[in-house]
Formats: sequence, structure tokens, C-alpha cells
Amino acid sequence: MQDRLEPRDGSASRVLAVVGVGLIGGSFAAALRRKGKVARVLGVGRHRRSLQEAVELGIIDAAVSLEEAARQADVIMLAVPVGATQAVLEGMLPHLREDCLITDAGSTKVSVVEAARAALGERIAQFVPGHPIAGAEKTGPAAAMADLYDGRVVVLTPLDENPPEARLRITRLWEACGARVISMEPDTHDVVLASVSHVPHFLSSVFMWQVATADNSDLRLELAGSGFRDFTRIAAGSPEMWRDIFLANREAILSEIGEVRKALDRAEQALLAGDAAKLHDFLERAALARRFWGSRSGLK
Amino acid sequence: MQDRLEPRDGSASRVLAVVGVGLIGGSFAAALRRKGKVARVLGVGRHRRSLQEAVELGIIDAAVSLEEAARQADVIMLAVPVGATQAVLEGMLPHLREDCLITDAGSTKVSVVEAARAALGERIAQFVPGHPIAGAEKTGPAAAMADLYDGRVVVLTPLDENPPEARLRITRLWEACGARVISMEPDTHDVVLASVSHVPHFLSSVFMWQVATADNSDLRLELAGSGFRDFTRIAAGSPEMWRDIFLANREAILSEIGEVRKALDRAEQALLAGDAAKLHDFLERAALARRFWGSRSGLK
Repeated sequence: MQDRLEPRDGSASRVLAVVGVGLIGGSFAAALRRKGKVARVLGVGRHRRSLQEAVELGIIDAAVSLEEAARQADVIMLAVPVGATQAVLEGMLPHLREDCLITDAGSTKVSVVEAARAALGERIAQFVPGHPIAGAEKTGPAAAMADLYDGRVVVLTPLDENPPEARLRITRLWEACGARVISMEPDTHDVVLASVSHVPHFLSSVFMWQVATADNSDLRLELAGSGFRDFTRIAAGSPEMWRDIFLANREAILSEIGEVRKALDRAEQALLAGDAAKLHDFLERAALARRFWGSRSGLK
Repeated sequence: MQDRLEPRDGSASRVLAVVGVGLIGGSFAAALRRKGKVARVLGVGRHRRSLQEAVELGIIDAAVSLEEAARQADVIMLAVPVGATQAVLEGMLPHLREDCLITDAGSTKVSVVEAARAALGERIAQFVPGHPIAGAEKTGPAAAMADLYDGRVVVLTPLDENPPEARLRITRLWEACGARVISMEPDTHDVVLASVSHVPHFLSSVFMWQVATADNSDLRLELAGSGFRDFTRIAAGSPEMWRDIFLANREAILSEIGEVRKALDRAEQALLAGDAAKLHDFLERAALARRFWGSRSGLK
């Protein structure tokens, strides 16, 4: 019955398949359904229980195999660890409809594009890579929210092979989710995300590791307060997911860590020298930048 | 009238003076008043407007001079930047009652004890140094809350000169605020706080500075999400206050930064080598430690 629902406008998609029905994929489905942009949502995943939960929550209409999803879908969203991209696309390729568009939500783009090219070959034109910049503290289908992308930025890194209509269709879908879409080259995306996402995660984990492995770690953790809580929150994230991201974006991350080390050297020198004015200037620059960002980001 | 109120038990104080009526000092006063431990609260501060606000909010009964506070107070709480400790104590000394106890809320203790010894001389026995581990995202008297210290840890670093009754009286006051009191040596406190408070702040500020001064900082900040938000939140803190803390605890902070650098070297080597297993182990150790801490800290 639902398959026969008319899309409300030309950019609508009748059947959406989501591979990986967690916070990111589930919220995409929920947002599009809310706007009437999809008539039917299929879910693919490794965990039978999560899929069943997603059905019960009304996020997906049915759990299907990769092959079945490829056969039926007008649009496919890959919300899987970046390391799984190639295998998923290879599994879908033989069954993929000619008019189907695939996009993804991976946190790195150069490696995802390489994986997609390797998997899809000539049909790479059907793949429009993307990355929604949206929170992922909670996971699983129960965390999915129709408004997760409201006011958030989504980066697309379209390929030369993508026809303009393909880019436009994916852009419209994200806009229907309430997101603001910006486009850039995959390598620019990866350098920028290395800076503002991957390196903070790396440093937070390094710091947490150092405190947890210190001789008197119990005492340290007993005296840790709200600053520690905020600074280390991301270190609690999935080791598997972040290992994959770090390896996939290794070069940019190492380069950015080098830049942070240079900044650390400077600040440490000022502290070592007891240079109060220099210390103050550095702290003030950081504080003003953070406050300005906080007042504009909508993430405060 | 209020001065004649009977204290409810032997540990009660009739007149409390708070020097620096902001979040920390104001919350101390509000908590003790709630429990009937103080009959009258005097406030001392640099900003007439803050003091007036504190009177209007009922946090203090009157704004007075340092001298007047010293003359009247049974207990004095110093909630001022650590760099101001010596001058404040020098200003109070000539008027200080023999039976008055002074404590403080400074984030470093070795430097505060030095300042107190320099200022108070033989009367150092009246000073019981302390540090409540409690949030300070908001500032000013309007942020003061009677329950700020509920379930929080307060570190006391008593001096050999402090009579047991003095330690006990300050301990009881903090317990009346709902806090759990632990005692340690000033230098132990400073090393531990360097690790879990000062170094995270330093690193967060260094990172924020690096992003804000990068060539394409606008693009970076546009793509910064919730992980960035949490990791950099503390970098928005007061440059003056943190400069003072860094200088006051310089040695311990530099030493701990050295330890973090060693941990960073190891993690970076694993990434450089593409050692997935080692990366995963390090991330997992950090994630488990953070999750365990989060589940126990009451700060989650």
C-alpha cells in the first residue's frame, strides 16, 4: 500500500534503504518520513535485534537483505563504519537499479571515495558521498530523532562523475531533513575534519589513557571535576569506529597533530618562562574564539 | 538581631565572611545558611554591583570592607583568584580575631600556603587551606546555588600548625554543605589537580588556539560539531584566572604535560605504523576508563 503513495514533489524518493539503522541512518529515515519524502523505508543491518527495534519504533518498514535493498531502493543511505563501505557496495552492486542513488554518512571522505570506486567501477556516478556533522553520543535506533539534522551542516563531496541531478537530489533530501548543505573536495573535508573532530578525539583519548594508567589514577579520578568530564567525554566513544576513522584519515590527522604540537610548544615555552603576558594573550585568544563559536554554532 | 541567633550545634559559626561573592563563595554561604550554620553573612569584593546583587539575592546580609569582615567574622572564606591570597590576608591580619578561622577555595595549594604563611606569620594556625572540586561554568553571585557542593569532593590540605579543632570545624562546615571532605598534602593536591584539571584546560586552550589561528579557521569552525564543543568548552574560561593557576602550579603542570606527551608519542607511533590492534587497545582502555568514571562520578 505504502509503495503507491505519491511523492509530494519531484525530489521525493519512494523507497529509501538505510544500511546501518542507528542514530545517523535512523534519524535520516525519520526526518524524511516526517516530511513525506519517502513512502517506504527498508533497513539493512548486522544485528537482528536492532532491526527489529527499528521496525517497532516505526523507523523502518521492514528489515531486508543487502540484495533486496539494492533491488528495491530509489535512494540508499550507507550509515556504516567507513571500513565497511567497500564490502557493502560490492554486495549491492549486482542488484543495484540504474536510477538508484547512493549516499553515505562516513566521517572520512577520501577513503570512502576510494572504496566506492573500487566497489562500483563504472557505476560510481550513482554514488554521492556525504557527511552530516551531527552528534553521536547515543547510538542505536532508539536514539534516532527526526530533528537530529535540524540546523546542522551536511558536507557533500560530489564526484566529477555525478550528474548535476544526482547532487541536487541528495542535496534536497538533506535540506528536507533541515540541514544546510555545503560542498567541498574530499581531501579538504578530511583535513578539516581531522582538525575539528579526529584530532580532538585522539587527544582526549590520549589524555584519558594517561590519567587512567598513572600510578595514582584512583586519586586522580576521584578529584576529577566538570572540566575533566567535558574534555574526556568523547574518549568514551566506540574504539572500533574511531580506530577505523583514524586509520582512514591517518595522513591528515598526523599532520594536524604536528600543528597542535607546535602550538603546545609555544604555550609550554611561555609557561616555562613564567611569561604572564604571553600566557594571558594565548588564553584570551582561545577563550574569545571559543565563546564566539559557542554563540554562533547553535551547539552551545 | 541575627547575630543573637543561637548556633544549632557546636560546629556552627555565627558570622561568616566571604571574600569574593561569586559562584564558589556565594554557594558556600547559601549552603551554610540553608543548614542554619550561619546567622549572618558578610560579603567583601571588588565590584560594588556584584555585592549589591548578592545582598538582593539574600546570599549576604551586608557588604563590608576587608577590615570590617576581619573584625566581625568567626569564619572567613577566601574565594578569590589564588594570586590575590596574600594581599587579602595582609589586609585582614591587623583586625583578625584570635578565634577566627580562615579557609579558602583556591585551585592550587602550595602557592596559597606560601602566600598565607607570608601574610599571616605566626597566625598561620588560623588558616586551613581547602579546594572544593565543583563546577564553575557560570560565574557571579546569581550563579550561586545552595546545593552546588552536594555530593562533591572538597580537599583540605591542613597545616601542621592547625589545631585539630580547626580542621574539624572547617570539615564540619563543608560536610554541612553536602560535600565529602578528604585531606592530603598541598603538593599531592597540586600534582593531582595539575593532571585532571590544569592540563586539560591547557590542552583545550592550545587546541582552540591552533584551530582559531589556522588559515582556514572559518571553514574549520563551520564544520565543528558536538565533540569539538565538549573538548573545547573549558577553553572559554577566564584567561586571568587560568593564567594565575598555570603560573601558581607551573612545575606540576609542566611535568604532567611531559607525561601526556609520552602517551601522545606512543599513540602517534601506533597510528603512523598503521597498527590497528595497538590503536584499538589504546582507544579501548581510554573508553572503558572514561565510561567507568562517568558511571561513578555523579558528574555524567
